[in-house]
Amino acid sequence: MSTAPFVTLVQDTLQEVEALLARQADGYHPDLQAALHHLLAAGGKRIRPTVALLMGRLLGAPHRRLVILAAALEMLHTATLVHDDLIDGALLRRGMPTLNAQWSPAATVLTGDFLFARAALLATNTESLHVMRLFTQALAVIVDGEIRQLFEGGAYTTAAQYEHRIYAKTASMFELATAAAATLAGAAPDFPTYEQARRYGYHIGMAFQIVDDILDYQGDSRQVGKPVGNDLRNGLVTLPALIYMQHQGQQDPDLQAVLQNGGLFDAQRVERLVTRIRESGALQAAAQAARQHIDAALQALQALPPGPERDALAALAHYVVDRDF
Amino acid sequence: MSTAPFVTLVQDTLQEVEALLARQADGYHPDLQAALHHLLAAGGKRIRPTVALLMGRLLGAPHRRLVILAAALEMLHTATLVHDDLIDGALLRRGMPTLNAQWSPAATVLTGDFLFARAALLATNTESLHVMRLFTQALAVIVDGEIRQLFEGGAYTTAAQYEHRIYAKTASMFELATAAAATLAGAAPDFPTYEQARRYGYHIGMAFQIVDDILDYQGDSRQVGKPVGNDLRNGLVTLPALIYMQHQGQQDPDLQAVLQNGGLFDAQRVERLVTRIRESGALQAAAQAARQHIDAALQALQALPPGPERDALAALAHYVVDRDF
Repeated sequence: MSTAPFVTLVQDTLQEVEALLARQADGYHPDLQAALHHLLAAGGKRIRPTVALLMGRLLGAPHRRLVILAAALEMLHTATLVHDDLIDGALLRRGMPTLNAQWSPAATVLTGDFLFARAALLATNTESLHVMRLFTQALAVIVDGEIRQLFEGGAYTTAAQYEHRIYAKTASMFELATAAAATLAGAAPDFPTYEQARRYGYHIGMAFQIVDDILDYQGDSRQVGKPVGNDLRNGLVTLPALIYMQHQGQQDPDLQAVLQNGGLFDAQRVERLVTRIRESGALQAAAQAARQHIDAALQALQALPPGPERDALAALAHYVVDRDF
Repeated sequence: MSTAPFVTLVQDTLQEVEALLARQADGYHPDLQAALHHLLAAGGKRIRPTVALLMGRLLGAPHRRLVILAAALEMLHTATLVHDDLIDGALLRRGMPTLNAQWSPAATVLTGDFLFARAALLATNTESLHVMRLFTQALAVIVDGEIRQLFEGGAYTTAAQYEHRIYAKTASMFELATAAAATLAGAAPDFPTYEQARRYGYHIGMAFQIVDDILDYQGDSRQVGKPVGNDLRNGLVTLPALIYMQHQGQQDPDLQAVLQNGGLFDAQRVERLVTRIRESGALQAAAQAARQHIDAALQALQALPPGPERDALAALAHYVVDRDF
């Protein structure tokens, strides 16, 4: 992704974000510093900071505060991943050992807490109460979503529950990225600019998670440590399974087993179910749903000022759905 | 404590704080609401909100924002307790089951995260960026302190390490309470009023934790579930043991065992060591250190405007050290 056209525009600024992130444990316990650097090195594509930087630049947000916002977003994202991996017992993320694979649960909980604290401090340093409020609201939505998933499992998921879940899990933070960037550019929540920026973030976030959920059925080699059908194995009913269920899959005994037991241990049954869902055309239908979100994101973009940043945001929207199919 | 003279002044306002706290999970998952209400019912004396309310009223902070600040403080305190109890594996706190005694670790981690998010949102609702910054800095200090305690244990604690630890664990939040209250009253960090308010909070917080550490050697019946010598058992060297160590205790084989093994399993050896530390006069010396902090707190108070709130804050300072000896 480092060579993607939409990154080029903000490549230098992303270096500033990176440097700011790397300093966030300075003066704290050496093991915290080591943990932060491990997490940042293992970190992904910085797509949230990229979105925030492009939107902020498009709308004219001041450079320094925008860099801080971008760092705050990545730090919040990293903090939620640390607690997520602990809860899921995941040992690898993007092919690198997770914190909880190397540390005790206690140290992992506290490191996540520390990263939350630093994310909040960075958000405060944007010097905008509204940005701060967006951050804390997003955090409450994210955590509430995780709690729902934990307590309700994936069983008997409705389309509305799925939408709410992927909003909480992913879209809320993309929405935060673009709404906060608009805020730093001086747009109040009742400005049309603010609303279109927010909508762009919301829709690419929804599409991003739908595509992630499709990839779980496709065996993407880049998602190391995540075998195909991982969600079904863990009882998580995502859009492909939902679409399959609404059509021919209602009587599928393997899907019924997933729903009734909150997961499926038998690898052969998982594989069989994945194959049937793939052959049902559910992945194409799910991809279509993702594309509708991208269309809505592009429509929102059209209402924003033209410029290279807008073109880059449009390219980024296409990338979100086209990265693997 | 509900009849203590320093509470009377703010009793009605504390009811408003309580009502605001109870609403913080409204609209979220029912189990989150139940958890919040359990935690609030099990909650303690609301000493942090009381301190903030008294200081804010003394300095003329606006009522509504002060109520929000007080709720934010109690919510932050509650959030840290939830993760603390999980890390310590504590099953009881103040005689009530802890969240982790009833819930899975995953649910407990997430509930703590949710409470952090709500604390941050309440802090944001004080509409003061400086209050927000104080909050996030305090949170980073608290978590860093817990991480240090986890990684370094209590072994080979120096007086400076002990001071840093109790500042992080307890005094930082009292300091936050009074500095934030002064901020809402319009005092900037370079105002003498701000500095004296901060000092008062810092010193009663330090005294509060020293007294807590002394109580661990006295077997306070109110600290249900915490037997005498709990800290030594867990390898935590607090002020009484530090003072004992600096005098006759250097060669004490039981204390050496605590230091070398990061704790002591043998109940008889713990009891023997507790008795020797008590008989050494270390508890009196530690109480003297607590009283010095109270004197400093009272001195800071003298620089603040007179009034019933100042008298109440003075009474509260005395209460902190005199509650049990």
